[in-house]
Amino acid sequence: MAGTNSERQLLAEGPVIILVEPQMGENIGMVARAMANFGLVDLRLVNPRDGWPNEKAQAAASKADHVIAGTRVYDTLEQAIADLNFVYATTARSRDNYKPVRSPVFAAETLRTKFRGGEATGILFGRERWGLTNEEVALADEIVTFPVNPAFASLNIAQAVLLMSYEWMKSGMEDIEAVPFQALEQRPSTKEQLFGLFDQLEEALDSRNYFHPPSKKPKMVDNLRAVLSRRAFTEQEISVLRGVISSLDRFTRNSPRKGGFTRSGKDAPTDDSADE
Amino acid sequence: MAGTNSERQLLAEGPVIILVEPQMGENIGMVARAMANFGLVDLRLVNPRDGWPNEKAQAAASKADHVIAGTRVYDTLEQAIADLNFVYATTARSRDNYKPVRSPVFAAETLRTKFRGGEATGILFGRERWGLTNEEVALADEIVTFPVNPAFASLNIAQAVLLMSYEWMKSGMEDIEAVPFQALEQRPSTKEQLFGLFDQLEEALDSRNYFHPPSKKPKMVDNLRAVLSRRAFTEQEISVLRGVISSLDRFTRNSPRKGGFTRSGKDAPTDDSADE
Repeated sequence: MAGTNSERQLLAEGPVIILVEPQMGENIGMVARAMANFGLVDLRLVNPRDGWPNEKAQAAASKADHVIAGTRVYDTLEQAIADLNFVYATTARSRDNYKPVRSPVFAAETLRTKFRGGEATGILFGRERWGLTNEEVALADEIVTFPVNPAFASLNIAQAVLLMSYEWMKSGMEDIEAVPFQALEQRPSTKEQLFGLFDQLEEALDSRNYFHPPSKKPKMVDNLRAVLSRRAFTEQEISVLRGVISSLDRFTRNSPRKGGFTRSGKDAPTDDSADE
Repeated sequence: MAGTNSERQLLAEGPVIILVEPQMGENIGMVARAMANFGLVDLRLVNPRDGWPNEKAQAAASKADHVIAGTRVYDTLEQAIADLNFVYATTARSRDNYKPVRSPVFAAETLRTKFRGGEATGILFGRERWGLTNEEVALADEIVTFPVNPAFASLNIAQAVLLMSYEWMKSGMEDIEAVPFQALEQRPSTKEQLFGLFDQLEEALDSRNYFHPPSKKPKMVDNLRAVLSRRAFTEQEISVLRGVISSLDRFTRNSPRKGGFTRSGKDAPTDDSADE
């Protein structure tokens, strides 16, 4: 799992991201950063307001240098998508046309399918202030739109690119629940280990007359065991709990365990966390 | 579907977003904006570097005033999550502990289930530069991490909040493919309508001796019909195509249709798009 960046796989494939007349260099840079996070690499700009290259874009890209270096600029949207086979237009509002309107999940899965079939695909994003024109949307095959708060829909282009890039990444995962690292491995405890915990705790309590009056002992034991059985402990958890009980059982505030103490009880499990 | 913002539902519920020692006001503002887009409203800050309120945060929030206005500040993370039942910690790297590590989709579904069960939940996000400490992660119940490009993992906190907020929104949708608006409705054409198109086109071509030599006509008709049958046209598409054929058939470049023309052919369908 460990490794330097250069050893890790740099994903760099998938749909082209096309920004139509972007205005703010910072947004272009954040788009590049969002793309790089999720393995996209091909960025195209149609008539960017402040020209290209753009220092603010480079600063905001946060080391997504491979995306910035490969960015291409076009005079028209038609030129920017001329070599593509299938294009989505992103839009936040209903358009008076007949193009299918898709969710980001559906769109990403469609793009993944076409990518695997060898098609060149792209996603159009409009201007910061007012998006894509109807004429620009008409150049796309389908529309993709985001599920947002009906009374607060205010995604900027870098956020919209981030969400589509993220869904693109997920569409390529065999298991959508996969995570890049895992918790330390723990084995579930056996019943025998659980019963050992019961025995240790009940003996320690019994010796202190916890189960009082004696007639109530069976019910009290039931209740105690119910608490300890409600979820399945792991072996490590049983070990930690037995160490805690040992400490409470054997030592007092006035006579605490000494630094050089060596555990002697034959039933006491090892508890690393208490030994430092 | 139409309506002013005030008529639309303002979603304002769900997990608390907790930012631990955020530094940049702009990031806090972008977090508020991301939350508002996906219906979250409860933002808490632990010991923000530049104090609170913060003008840069308000500017970057882009009208997410209801989130900014309700933001609360705490001295410690323990205080910030004291009233919550279940908390996720977001982290980009493996931690040396036993907490379950979840994907954003799994985490959002878990949060949704707990929300519906009446539990108060939250998601922790760390400092811009180095995230959460191990001690802070230890206060959470589980860990959530994002699937990113192995060689380029560089999500900022506003992007991370955006993704979790988006997955929260999706977890509440009955149909994950649902979109907030639809294409104009179109009915698929009937075969009779398709055959009408065949007849019109073939008659117009026949009158121009397109099918030449006559012995090849059956094969040529087959080929032509195959092109027009490859995908199912809608009624509107058939109407548009018949209008196009009418125009080509009836008018020439030297004798175009006049402005006041009224269509007279009894078989010609209405084509609104050609009438302006």
